[in-house]
Parts: sequence; structure tokens; C-alpha cells
Amino acid sequence: MSYALYYWPSIQGRGEFVRLALEDAGADYVDVARRKNGVELMLKKLKQHQVFAPPFLCHGKVVVAQTALILHYLGPHLGLAPRAEAARLRLLQLQLTITDFLVEVHDTHHPIANSLYYEDQKEESLRRARLFREQRMPKFLGYFETHATLPFSYVSLSLFQVMEGLQYAFPNTMKKMSYPKLTALHGKVQDRLKNYLTSTRRIPFNQSGIFRHYPELDA
Amino acid sequence: MSYALYYWPSIQGRGEFVRLALEDAGADYVDVARRKNGVELMLKKLKQHQVFAPPFLCHGKVVVAQTALILHYLGPHLGLAPRAEAARLRLLQLQLTITDFLVEVHDTHHPIANSLYYEDQKEESLRRARLFREQRMPKFLGYFETHATLPFSYVSLSLFQVMEGLQYAFPNTMKKMSYPKLTALHGKVQDRLKNYLTSTRRIPFNQSGIFRHYPELDA
Repeated sequence: MSYALYYWPSIQGRGEFVRLALEDAGADYVDVARRKNGVELMLKKLKQHQVFAPPFLCHGKVVVAQTALILHYLGPHLGLAPRAEAARLRLLQLQLTITDFLVEVHDTHHPIANSLYYEDQKEESLRRARLFREQRMPKFLGYFETHATLPFSYVSLSLFQVMEGLQYAFPNTMKKMSYPKLTALHGKVQDRLKNYLTSTRRIPFNQSGIFRHYPELDA
Repeated sequence: MSYALYYWPSIQGRGEFVRLALEDAGADYVDVARRKNGVELMLKKLKQHQVFAPPFLCHGKVVVAQTALILHYLGPHLGLAPRAEAARLRLLQLQLTITDFLVEVHDTHHPIANSLYYEDQKEESLRRARLFREQRMPKFLGYFETHATLPFSYVSLSLFQVMEGLQYAFPNTMKKMSYPKLTALHGKVQDRLKNYLTSTRRIPFNQSGIFRHYPELDA
């Protein structure tokens, strides 16, 4: 039974964490909103299933939203998580910490409101991004570094995406930091997912997603 | 086997969502950090179990962090969630949407950094809070309203706490809004938890938690 992923078609965003799991497992899935009239269909399904926001996944009768929860659901199906409950909970806990971090990454360029353009909250962004680079990045990455050598799972794929995104958005800052285990994990996943990452299915980073490169925020 | 909850002792904060579930169920639990030398013990345990941040819960050999995940774990134990996997996932999905909302509530008074005082980010707070009141509160509360009459669960308790917190932090704004199902749920839980809510175990709202009353942010 194939998976239907619903997410905005022009950004990696949160949906990419799900795409990476589906791609790594070679799963049979449809990235619905990237098809013709797909966004209309997504918004219709969103309403129908009372989902708060994309991404969400349909699999038979199951509908799951919230990125971390989608991965928690997919994990055992895709061989990207153990089946034992305690181990699954530990992975989900880590993934939820990644979720928390992603909000902070996003808010470096949107500290006031998602509904405003970056240009209309640039002053606030400069302030927030500086403290993000100095305090929050080391705190979260230091934590993730201590978990980078756990058995391979959907969390490994998400940590790859975090590193990939940070290198895109904050190249200068990343050059000054050293997280050898995360760097090794990044290389391993990059190799493992080479076919996907060089395909047109991988949407390039751009200035609409979570990770955006504004040089002034990476001073 | 009793539950040990670890959370900051002087605020409701995220820990309160767990306390409400434990209290509602009449569970045998210890609010560890509120005891003598409890904070030191919490920080030691945090390190020992590689937990990112409080709250976390210890129950026998199980250690769970992340508020929503703690509630997901406790739910069936406390009779506050069904045991069937699909139903449990739906509740967790809703709880994670509450988690998302709480970040936005918190960031109305801390839009730049948690490490700065409110007074040092007041201008930014005024801007963020206005858009929060106009756009985000109606969006989230409208969504929660459509879920307020689901069978009683830990999510019901959390929605009570959301309403309670918003009425403390944004009384003027709340007066202008109408969410009859959430209001009814709030009343029901208030009655149900009367003993706890009027006890010294319930920490009063204050200017250090997620919900803070700054009149200028509730204009």
C-alpha cells in the first residue's frame, strides 16, 4: 500500500524530513502536492481530515500529521526504527528536540511573524540570529553530537538534514564549529542518498523554507 | 510504582501540563524539584539520562522527556488516553499542536531570546504580540474549538490549561473572543480539579512562566 505525502511543493521545509525517510527506504510514495492540481487536493484533504498544517501522510485509513509523529509512525514500517516501544519513544523524544530546534532556525528570519516578509522584520532578525548563533546552535548541536552515533534510524536522516540546512544557511558559522560525529553522519547519509539528492525530486534550498541564506544573519 | 516528575519548582510552565494529568488521575507522584535540594537532583538526573531540558518523568526504568511525549506515555497508565494505537496517535498529534502554540505564546514576551529579559526585547514583543493576538490566537483556538468535545483525555486537561493561561496573560483579548466549547471544557476541568487548583501544589501564574500578563501586550 503506497504512502501519500502532502506538503508544499516548492520547499524542502518540514516535509523534507519525511521525504528523506521514504526515499532512504525506497518506499512507494506519492508527493501529492507536486502533481498537477496537487495543492488544491492537499488543502481539501487538510480540511477533510481536520489537520492543522502540512506535512501530513495518508496510508490506507491512517492519517498522521506533525513531522515527528509521521516519522514515528513510518519508522517501523520503513525499517528506520525498532519495533520495541521504549526504543521508539527514545527516538521520538530526540526527533521532538529536532522539531524544537527547527522552530528556532525558522525564527531567525521570522522572529515577529510568519505572515510578514523577512525584509519587514530584518532588524529583529539580526538580533535574534546573533543570539541563535552564539547560544542556541552550540547548545542544540552539542546535544545532537552526543546522539550522532546511535543505530541508524529516521533520526539519523533528520540530523543529516539539520547539518545540510545549517551549512546552507550559516556557512560561516558552521566553519567555526566542530562536530565530528555529526559531520561523519552527514557524509554517510549523503552517500547513502546520493541518487535522491542529485535527482529532481530533491528540491533545492531556497529563500522560502526553514533554512535560508541571508549573509547578514551569518556574520 | 510512583512517578517522579522533574521540572522547575517556581513556575507552572510546561511541567504543569504533566502535573494536571497526574493530579486528575490521583496518581502517586513526587514533584522532585520542589523538595529540598530538588533542583540540584534534577540537574544531575538531566545529565545522567542525557535529557535536553525539563520536564522529564521517571517511572521505574523509564525516562521520558518532552511534555507531549510524557503525556503520551502516561495517558493509558492514568486512564487519560485509550490504549489503541490509532487513537493514541490522534491525541498525540493534537498535543503536539498545543506544543507548537505554547512556543508562540512564550515568544510573545521573548521574541529575540530566552536569555534576555523581557524589558530588553519589549519593542519586539509589542510587535509580535499584536500579530499573535490578531492572527495566531484565532487560528489555534479555532482549531482547538473543533476538538474540545472529544472524549475526555490528557488533551482536555491541556486545553483547560491553555484557556486558563490565556485568560491570565491576555484577559482583554480573551473577552473579545468566543469559543463556547473551550469555555465549557475549561469550566468542567476547573470543577473536576478544584481540590488541586485551590491547593498549594498549584503554583500561581507569575512573570516567569509561559503565560505572563504584561498589559501592554494585551492592548
